[in-house]
Amino acid sequence: MSYDLVVRGGLVVSASGVFDADVAVAGGRIAAVGAGLAPGAHELDASGLYVVPGAIDGHVHLNDPTFPPHATFTADDFATGTRAAAFGGVTTVIDFAQPEVGQPLLDGLDARLADAAGEAVIDYALHLNVRDPDPARAEEIPGVFARGVPSFKLYMSYPGYRIPDEAIFRAMCRIAEGEGLAVLHAENDDVIAVRSAALAAQGRTGPRWLAEACPPEGEAEAVHRAIALAGLARARLLVFHLSCGEAAREVALAKRAGRAVWGEVTSHGLVFDAAVRETGDLRAQSFAVRPPIREAPQREALWSALVRGEIDIVSSDHCPRVAREDSHPAGVSGIETRLALVHHFGVGGGVIDLPRWVEVCASAPARIHGLDRKGRLEPGADADIVLFDPLREVELSPQALHSALPFSSYEGIVVRGFPVVTISRGEVIVQGGEFVGAAGRGRFVERGR
Amino acid sequence: MSYDLVVRGGLVVSASGVFDADVAVAGGRIAAVGAGLAPGAHELDASGLYVVPGAIDGHVHLNDPTFPPHATFTADDFATGTRAAAFGGVTTVIDFAQPEVGQPLLDGLDARLADAAGEAVIDYALHLNVRDPDPARAEEIPGVFARGVPSFKLYMSYPGYRIPDEAIFRAMCRIAEGEGLAVLHAENDDVIAVRSAALAAQGRTGPRWLAEACPPEGEAEAVHRAIALAGLARARLLVFHLSCGEAAREVALAKRAGRAVWGEVTSHGLVFDAAVRETGDLRAQSFAVRPPIREAPQREALWSALVRGEIDIVSSDHCPRVAREDSHPAGVSGIETRLALVHHFGVGGGVIDLPRWVEVCASAPARIHGLDRKGRLEPGADADIVLFDPLREVELSPQALHSALPFSSYEGIVVRGFPVVTISRGEVIVQGGEFVGAAGRGRFVERGR
Amino acid sequence: MSYDLVVRGGLVVSASGVFDADVAVAGGRIAAVGAGLAPGAHELDASGLYVVPGAIDGHVHLNDPTFPPHATFTADDFATGTRAAAFGGVTTVIDFAQPEVGQPLLDGLDARLADAAGEAVIDYALHLNVRDPDPARAEEIPGVFARGVPSFKLYMSYPGYRIPDEAIFRAMCRIAEGEGLAVLHAENDDVIAVRSAALAAQGRTGPRWLAEACPPEGEAEAVHRAIALAGLARARLLVFHLSCGEAAREVALAKRAGRAVWGEVTSHGLVFDAAVRETGDLRAQSFAVRPPIREAPQREALWSALVRGEIDIVSSDHCPRVAREDSHPAGVSGIETRLALVHHFGVGGGVIDLPRWVEVCASAPARIHGLDRKGRLEPGADADIVLFDPLREVELSPQALHSALPFSSYEGIVVRGFPVVTISRGEVIVQGGEFVGAAGRGRFVERGR
Amino acid sequence: MSYDLVVRGGLVVSASGVFDADVAVAGGRIAAVGAGLAPGAHELDASGLYVVPGAIDGHVHLNDPTFPPHATFTADDFATGTRAAAFGGVTTVIDFAQPEVGQPLLDGLDARLADAAGEAVIDYALHLNVRDPDPARAEEIPGVFARGVPSFKLYMSYPGYRIPDEAIFRAMCRIAEGEGLAVLHAENDDVIAVRSAALAAQGRTGPRWLAEACPPEGEAEAVHRAIALAGLARARLLVFHLSCGEAAREVALAKRAGRAVWGEVTSHGLVFDAAVRETGDLRAQSFAVRPPIREAPQREALWSALVRGEIDIVSSDHCPRVAREDSHPAGVSGIETRLALVHHFGVGGGVIDLPRWVEVCASAPARIHGLDRKGRLEPGADADIVLFDPLREVELSPQALHSALPFSSYEGIVVRGFPVVTISRGEVIVQGGEFVGAAGRGRFVERGR
Repeated sequence: MSYDLVVRGGLVVSASGVFDADVAVAGGRIAAVGAGLAPGAHELDASGLYVVPGAIDGHVHLNDPTFPPHATFTADDFATGTRAAAFGGVTTVIDFAQPEVGQPLLDGLDARLADAAGEAVIDYALHLNVRDPDPARAEEIPGVFARGVPSFKLYMSYPGYRIPDEAIFRAMCRIAEGEGLAVLHAENDDVIAVRSAALAAQGRTGPRWLAEACPPEGEAEAVHRAIALAGLARARLLVFHLSCGEAAREVALAKRAGRAVWGEVTSHGLVFDAAVRETGDLRAQSFAVRPPIREAPQREALWSALVRGEIDIVSSDHCPRVAREDSHPAGVSGIETRLALVHHFGVGGGVIDLPRWVEVCASAPARIHGLDRKGRLEPGADADIVLFDPLREVELSPQALHSALPFSSYEGIVVRGFPVVTISRGEVIVQGGEFVGAAGRGRFVERGR
Repeated sequence: MSYDLVVRGGLVVSASGVFDADVAVAGGRIAAVGAGLAPGAHELDASGLYVVPGAIDGHVHLNDPTFPPHATFTADDFATGTRAAAFGGVTTVIDFAQPEVGQPLLDGLDARLADAAGEAVIDYALHLNVRDPDPARAEEIPGVFARGVPSFKLYMSYPGYRIPDEAIFRAMCRIAEGEGLAVLHAENDDVIAVRSAALAAQGRTGPRWLAEACPPEGEAEAVHRAIALAGLARARLLVFHLSCGEAAREVALAKRAGRAVWGEVTSHGLVFDAAVRETGDLRAQSFAVRPPIREAPQREALWSALVRGEIDIVSSDHCPRVAREDSHPAGVSGIETRLALVHHFGVGGGVIDLPRWVEVCASAPARIHGLDRKGRLEPGADADIVLFDPLREVELSPQALHSALPFSSYEGIVVRGFPVVTISRGEVIVQGGEFVGAAGRGRFVERGR
Repeated sequence: MSYDLVVRGGLVVSASGVFDADVAVAGGRIAAVGAGLAPGAHELDASGLYVVPGAIDGHVHLNDPTFPPHATFTADDFATGTRAAAFGGVTTVIDFAQPEVGQPLLDGLDARLADAAGEAVIDYALHLNVRDPDPARAEEIPGVFARGVPSFKLYMSYPGYRIPDEAIFRAMCRIAEGEGLAVLHAENDDVIAVRSAALAAQGRTGPRWLAEACPPEGEAEAVHRAIALAGLARARLLVFHLSCGEAAREVALAKRAGRAVWGEVTSHGLVFDAAVRETGDLRAQSFAVRPPIREAPQREALWSALVRGEIDIVSSDHCPRVAREDSHPAGVSGIETRLALVHHFGVGGGVIDLPRWVEVCASAPARIHGLDRKGRLEPGADADIVLFDPLREVELSPQALHSALPFSSYEGIVVRGFPVVTISRGEVIVQGGEFVGAAGRGRFVERGR
Repeated sequence: MSYDLVVRGGLVVSASGVFDADVAVAGGRIAAVGAGLAPGAHELDASGLYVVPGAIDGHVHLNDPTFPPHATFTADDFATGTRAAAFGGVTTVIDFAQPEVGQPLLDGLDARLADAAGEAVIDYALHLNVRDPDPARAEEIPGVFARGVPSFKLYMSYPGYRIPDEAIFRAMCRIAEGEGLAVLHAENDDVIAVRSAALAAQGRTGPRWLAEACPPEGEAEAVHRAIALAGLARARLLVFHLSCGEAAREVALAKRAGRAVWGEVTSHGLVFDAAVRETGDLRAQSFAVRPPIREAPQREALWSALVRGEIDIVSSDHCPRVAREDSHPAGVSGIETRLALVHHFGVGGGVIDLPRWVEVCASAPARIHGLDRKGRLEPGADADIVLFDPLREVELSPQALHSALPFSSYEGIVVRGFPVVTISRGEVIVQGGEFVGAAGRGRFVERGR
């Protein structure tokens, strides 16, 4: 065997340790890791750099219609979004197929696959969002499995997305039969409805009142309910974007009981706090995501849960929505900045170590989402490799970043440490500040096969 | 002051102790407790008897329409039902006003008051059942408080009764403002719907499959949710007819957190187990109440929770439904037997002591339901007094009991210990095996004033 | 029956409620409670006063030798101490028989009984302090039971008092056989020894450093261990003078597990915080009791535990030690002030209600310590009655109080509410600010018979 | 770089995954892992074999004096014991320096190093057993650290080994200063003493009554206490040989609280249950280790804790004691069989997966005990490699095994899967059923440097 590429002289960081080693690639896979490796057709010098598995972002919204009736889409499509991701050291994203109510699931899946095909520059997978409570939809779930999509997003909240608990439970039963993964947006929608109405009656609307309408106890209740339903259905469960210690605690209790339950936190949930909505202006509106970004002590609670292993995954929930004249749909742009942000605040802040950084950004998403050949630098794995310069300082701005969005949610933050080379299946696609890969080279990854 | 009545020579059992004392009555109230009391206009010899506060049954269904569209009513109306209650040592019952969907709450309350007025022979109060999710109904709650009805029944399950969590939460917020009590039927209806359909598809219907359709985890989830919603609303909460250890544990956890949450168990839940539904016949159907009567270890778990103070109240959930030709609506008849059954199995079985018996059948219901002058034998309290013969053996049967129902749910059980005299507001109404009170003498008790 | 005494017109406060009633006494017992009672040979007007059961102080040190080798005794003997107690509304105290190492338990008990006989003016009982680890002592425990002493104090800490866990466990096994009560001073002595030495090496001695040497975690560990040992021995357990939330939590967890475990807090633990030792002067030294009086948040944690029923009893741990020239042995004087202090800070502060006040100061100590005829105002109980004026203001000072100690631990505190009449077994012993009872009238109360 | 050795064609099993790869060795270290590696000076064919990191046994007793006054030693010395270990796939053992009471710690350490030097055939490290409560010993702890021994064994039980909690806590404080590890034998000795005496008084002695004398609650109490003391000292803690769910739960609770607490289980604790002591004969006596091997449900609880990550390490506690004429000191021989037993019952039994097997037998012991270059197959690590044949069946017997002990504790058990080649620092030392390494080649591994 001759190597196509050898990355030499770097410090390999895996989820389990840190060591000096070269990394050889052949046929798009990791061929060898170590010293004394034969020369590759190409060689990359990684001196002074971390060599890490390509990051995996299990939660992005590309080309995603903004909530009806606003018929616009998120600013990034699969082309621009995955290109930005590649700059940020991400080599796989998982987006969503979102069949409409009344539309057969496979039709919606096909439509979504068409959105990405020939556009994405890195590999991608899909969750399927079940928005239609019709029992007929649940019957179609086995067919979705057969297409390499074993994870299903279910909303307990959000008008237009929420389905009744009965439909959630019915779907979970089907998901369990296929040994798939239920992925939940967990908030108590009823509490939010009543509280929002009461606040509105007092003239309290807008981003400043969001957290008041969406209390931690409501989120925790919904997480508890999701865990109970998944337990009855015997389904594996990932709770998306946990936003508070109360909700994370429910996940932790389920883990302690031996349940197959995992938790995700967003990068913005680890960086920002409620102050970001205080001004009430357009930028504040863009941060009015749900569950809400909460007070600073809750952010610390999320970091603690991440350290203790109660939260497993950091995702971006990248949702680059465009401002309108006088309003701004909620959505934080983070597809490119997550790996750097978690490194800067987490590792640089002394909260987590290097292996845990790789774990939460790459290895755990790969394992939990069933990306069997992603997320680790071991022989046989896909050669998705990132060279990360721990000393490089980058001031986050639209100019420094590559989303199609004309602003950056993290504007003004200076991170120390940033990816400098991104390799996808053995191909260098970002180097020297340039995207050097082929357009549309990304492949759909079938999972659970 | 001269006494109207003195009960002499009995053993007074209160929720806090047991002691020899006479009990004097004046003006319908307890006047004095002790020795050396002046003669009363009437005297009763209680030698060898327990003298206990009149039992309170916080959960009965008199003159209650069977689930639509079956336009029949429970066998007992307020006349026959309260008469049977009096024979069983009960001096206060709490039934339900059940406004129809679309009907203003006060209209429903008035209608229900008319049902009872001039019929009941003991005192009675009402919970108000909110069956209409219309927010307009929640606005009417303060008006209900003003009528002496501070407790509101909310169903999380049962077609025709269930209202959405949003309506439950909205009602709880109003209930909290009035410092009232939310009373919940807590089961996860969605789980039951999916499970029932799956069982039906397998031909598994009828009482034998009830518990399979209604798992303990679903009940526990609903109790947890009810507690969370009540916590957010800051409402006091009583969970009705807990049927399993899992659900009781949620109540216990809430208590430990300092929450104003209480739990009720039914007398049939403490006596029977799932075997009672095994035959699948009409009698089995009558026992197909929800939440279901569960396996024997769950019954023991309920007793344990009662002993530990995690469950506070024993009620009958008396619901004397009449059999039809080939079916039998679910409902257990227990208005007359509860005090004796809890004494027989609880005290006689060595599980609880005499004061705890009085606590769970009289004092705790009085305290939690706001019957300020009921449930205790202290000067100033209403002279609702029962003389209970601990040695009297009664074989439960339609002949021995007084419900209008032509059968007894507890047929064949022989209890040791039964009430022999019942006194309501100082008037002897049951004595020598006869009802000796005036017809329609019962009064509506306004609570929370 | 004719009454010897009737207390008229007061507001009776029991552990379960509050009501207007007269209280009649005959033969030293409560004869009747209520209205319309026949005249007594004597009558007392209780208008405007609370009528409560005489308080019980389950933890006092009268005529107690100061730690060897200082051969002095606490300032109060049974005569002065019980007289002060009577002024404070206390009608029963429990002190300690403290057999010396090597001395048979019954000899020590006899000696102690001789100390009290003919001295005490109210009733008294004794715990027996097992200070000798010799297994022979454990063999003598049944003999102590036979003398009406079913509770045994065991020290896990304090030089000269601590016995090894082996001896504690051995004693607990014997205590369990007699269905007695193990009463523990629970602190981790080993941690304190190491910490004290380390602090001393830094010149950090004296009362200011006490809490540093005696951490809450060490106390909680000891409480956990005591509970574990009692569980293995199947012994009932009361943990004395809990000083922090961590320790109280262990008691709470045991209760939740259905264990017969109770907790005590001292009145000074509910009133003071660590600031009282800041000066380091003689007064500060007198407050250097163990476990230590802790920071203010811990005091609040103790109140919370008392409210939630996790702590059951408030005692004084009255230990009126006399200052020496330049030092002051630790000990707080509180035998007379407890009922008033708990009323003032607890009821007056809105933390507990009147029945809970009576519960923790009288009814619970009676029940837990086996004083079957004390602690309640029910027919048949001992006529130990206190008339308490809720409006009377008293500035606590040596002049206002009656301990033989020349200073008051609570100097300068003004309490609103104080006892004005104390009745012991039907005899008025304090009235009009004077002690009017006979000298030495107190009786030894045999428990557990 | 040229490779000294390449292991080709095996299935690499690491703590995080499983993949096909060759493993190259140079200079005694892992040089590379992967495909396409250049030829080594030597090559080994691993086709059909697992390639795993050399196992680490963190708990063995070689050349260990049997409890005084029996002046004999365990059957294996460092020569025979480490040779047997090598056959069993173990490449590092950790034994104990056991300074006598009164002996300076460094003297005891030197003596122990002399026992091993020139004898051991694999690498070894030492814990230091603090048996002397003299505070002077604690002062010597920093000197022990300086010698590469950062872990200290402390006995809470066993006559001759137990030291008072005060000495344990004092040692823990010193251990914490050096960021070392406290390693505890945790049982409540006092409970055992009292229970043993009571059982003996009933004639209940010998191995059949061992568990009765040593209840799970006593072990759990000691574990709780150890955790509390370590918490106060801020010391890292490993609890040895957990034997029951109650004790493992304490470790789990500490982990959940974010504490640096780990748990060990023995291989015999995972294989046997109390039945092994039923006969009471010599073999039964050899199994009378402490804490005891318990009933079968406890064994399952230990497996569960291992699965959930509440227990971290499996060790052998190899203690090959020799039978005497009519008695047999307790001790189980397991140095050679652990890797195979955990594979057979754990992996073969479907309880744990291959990575978890490697984790608990190699990677976790390396990480927790500070063996920085052991326990993983990553470039730069020591080339301690085992080739394990998953299909090879071995009937455990003295003939098949290599301990100097004339019997096998696991006699008659047939395991499927056994090591076939053992490589230590790049040298093949066991191959073809023969030991082929040099005598005395093992090196002392200094830790914590």
